[in-house]
Amino acid sequence: MSATTVMERCDILGRLSEEPGMLTRPSLSPSMQQVNSLVAGWMREAGMSVQQDAIGNIFGRYEGQQAGMQTLVLGSHLDSVRNAGRYDGPLGVLVALSCVERLYRRGERLPFALEVVGFTDEEGLRFQHAYLGSKSATGMLAPDALLLTDATGTTLAEAIRGYGGIPEALKQPRWRREDLLGYCEVHIEQGPVLEAQQVPIGVVTAIAGQSRLNVRCIGLAGHAGTVPMSLRRDALCAAAECLLLIEKEACEYPGLVATVGQASVLPGASNVIPGEVRFSIDIRHQDDTTRARALSRVLEQIRASCQRRGITVQWEVLQESKAVHCQPRLRRLLERAVEASGYPLMTLPSGAGHDAVVMAELTDIAMLFVRCRGGISHHPDEAVAVEDVAIALDTLERFVLLLAQEAAV
Amino acid sequence: MSATTVMERCDILGRLSEEPGMLTRPSLSPSMQQVNSLVAGWMREAGMSVQQDAIGNIFGRYEGQQAGMQTLVLGSHLDSVRNAGRYDGPLGVLVALSCVERLYRRGERLPFALEVVGFTDEEGLRFQHAYLGSKSATGMLAPDALLLTDATGTTLAEAIRGYGGIPEALKQPRWRREDLLGYCEVHIEQGPVLEAQQVPIGVVTAIAGQSRLNVRCIGLAGHAGTVPMSLRRDALCAAAECLLLIEKEACEYPGLVATVGQASVLPGASNVIPGEVRFSIDIRHQDDTTRARALSRVLEQIRASCQRRGITVQWEVLQESKAVHCQPRLRRLLERAVEASGYPLMTLPSGAGHDAVVMAELTDIAMLFVRCRGGISHHPDEAVAVEDVAIALDTLERFVLLLAQEAAV
Repeated sequence: MSATTVMERCDILGRLSEEPGMLTRPSLSPSMQQVNSLVAGWMREAGMSVQQDAIGNIFGRYEGQQAGMQTLVLGSHLDSVRNAGRYDGPLGVLVALSCVERLYRRGERLPFALEVVGFTDEEGLRFQHAYLGSKSATGMLAPDALLLTDATGTTLAEAIRGYGGIPEALKQPRWRREDLLGYCEVHIEQGPVLEAQQVPIGVVTAIAGQSRLNVRCIGLAGHAGTVPMSLRRDALCAAAECLLLIEKEACEYPGLVATVGQASVLPGASNVIPGEVRFSIDIRHQDDTTRARALSRVLEQIRASCQRRGITVQWEVLQESKAVHCQPRLRRLLERAVEASGYPLMTLPSGAGHDAVVMAELTDIAMLFVRCRGGISHHPDEAVAVEDVAIALDTLERFVLLLAQEAAV
Repeated sequence: MSATTVMERCDILGRLSEEPGMLTRPSLSPSMQQVNSLVAGWMREAGMSVQQDAIGNIFGRYEGQQAGMQTLVLGSHLDSVRNAGRYDGPLGVLVALSCVERLYRRGERLPFALEVVGFTDEEGLRFQHAYLGSKSATGMLAPDALLLTDATGTTLAEAIRGYGGIPEALKQPRWRREDLLGYCEVHIEQGPVLEAQQVPIGVVTAIAGQSRLNVRCIGLAGHAGTVPMSLRRDALCAAAECLLLIEKEACEYPGLVATVGQASVLPGASNVIPGEVRFSIDIRHQDDTTRARALSRVLEQIRASCQRRGITVQWEVLQESKAVHCQPRLRRLLERAVEASGYPLMTLPSGAGHDAVVMAELTDIAMLFVRCRGGISHHPDEAVAVEDVAIALDTLERFVLLLAQEAAV
């Protein structure tokens, strides 16, 4: 199977949507059912036995040299955000599918089974809760998840019933720990690093840990015409200083990213000195200690800067998630597969979350990134080159064969 | 008449409002009618003949040594913003009224007439158009002003009719240029300068000119996790740098104030690098050349800073108003009156607008500021000390007498 087929299939799936004129594919929807049905057909053509679970994950199993062997899982997700691109998720599923199809065409069986998974609801579009599909498949769904509701008030349990499934089946995970050999996910980078380095693919080192905070700077509102500069306690000037401190600090730690994506100014009139500013901080790094150290330095500087300006500052940590590391042995095999492709080996962390984060709770993970145009994702302009997909497909196949060689020894 | 009476009258007028529990007095309203009726009574008690014009300005005339002499106008406005304090406006009218009452009690006539004016609609609350009262009295109302509408769709013409007036009467101004000797307005400072200097009153040098702009910084939105710091074009970091440049530049020109009161971030999600930021600039100085030079330096630095960051920057000048200078001779008399009070002479510009700006089109102006607590105005917490009002009243009386001495020579 060629990369052209993968691209054509991404196009076909990209047309299955719940909204006219754009790609919007929430979980447990008619378009999701159509996608799974098409993917199931392609899986069968590639010699796989197919199962769909209650929440709408689809699994294609390609047995190893004997039945019931340990399983290497390959895949990604098939749902989308609103007004999405066609590659975020599906590319990884379809590359995995084509990889298995190549083995099947050659009649090749490995010393382990392969499963291609198309997870549902990685994006969390419908129930505002990410990773529902992979959490369900790994038995990590919270017991009350069935009570989650979508925008229309439909619960997850009702949505599953409407999709033809039995909600209680969610208690039966697809895999137990001892069943699995590992999980390898191919995904578009969703960032501009590979493009900037002019390399088609990259091996992921880790999925970055993340801290999310809200910060409040409280100064004193006043008349823009009558309060001299020297008597002001301008919350927005203080926040501006904080923002530049955050940016400067982030630049000092290689690989660290820090973002202020939201800021609101009160009272927010052009002739009133801002009395209060609220802003968000999102800070990520593949090494948790580095992230913690950077965050603590940022907060220390924010405090000092606000104190100098007579501004009261408060913050609240909304979320802390640890980095998830790709497993060294699998990562090394993936690196060898890349090296064999003749392209420079590029390693990079993933700043975005993936199903691999959930799979890492159950088994070893590896990830391969594919260059995407302009680093754009979650947008109809998302694009990958067929040449890069070809390299990714060859690399994934080589990775699987290298693992087979090792397993056979 | 004592300052205590002025304070008591401010309290009485402060209870006349269109909204329960707060002071909100739009023009041409029942509460405005009640206020004018009370003020008219006090004017008559002070020996003045009273007239109200169609738009609701009230005038009390205290003739000079002969009938039909030139007129010195004293006063301020009687309308308010929403949820206002009780001194912004009324204090100036009531101090002027008490000043005339003192002359009347002493049976003293001057070589000019005095008029105490209570302007309406200085704040622009009802028709979103400031200075309607003083513009009408000076014949500077635009011909289409009668078509202005309030929030309920009532036109100014209809509001005048509802108030018992004839809209067409607005074409007859109260004064012609040759009728007037000058205008002197007492007003709370609405800023913290006098309080910081620990002086009760200050002589206004000029009403600052003002430039208002909107600025757009356009960068590139991106994923907060996947775009390295070095590849970002973060519009908010650029805007933060601009804000600090504005603040720094403003501090370098004595008397300059520059304020960014509004800022909005697009798309405004905590996990998305800001692609665009819009913010306001409000810059004021009593010297137009200084303001123009500061603004041009600010914009030059904004352009350079954005260029360095790969950010496109655009701006739009929304408003330019020139500084209005207090007339040197009147100002000097007011300064002599302050010096005679025994308090240190403090001169300062007004960063806020006043009816004096409109009056300056027709005659010479002077202004006296009274210290207000915390520099707070347009808020129920607005406060002045009775001791400071006493000093302001004595000073205004002395100013009037000094002018009379000069006129008599």
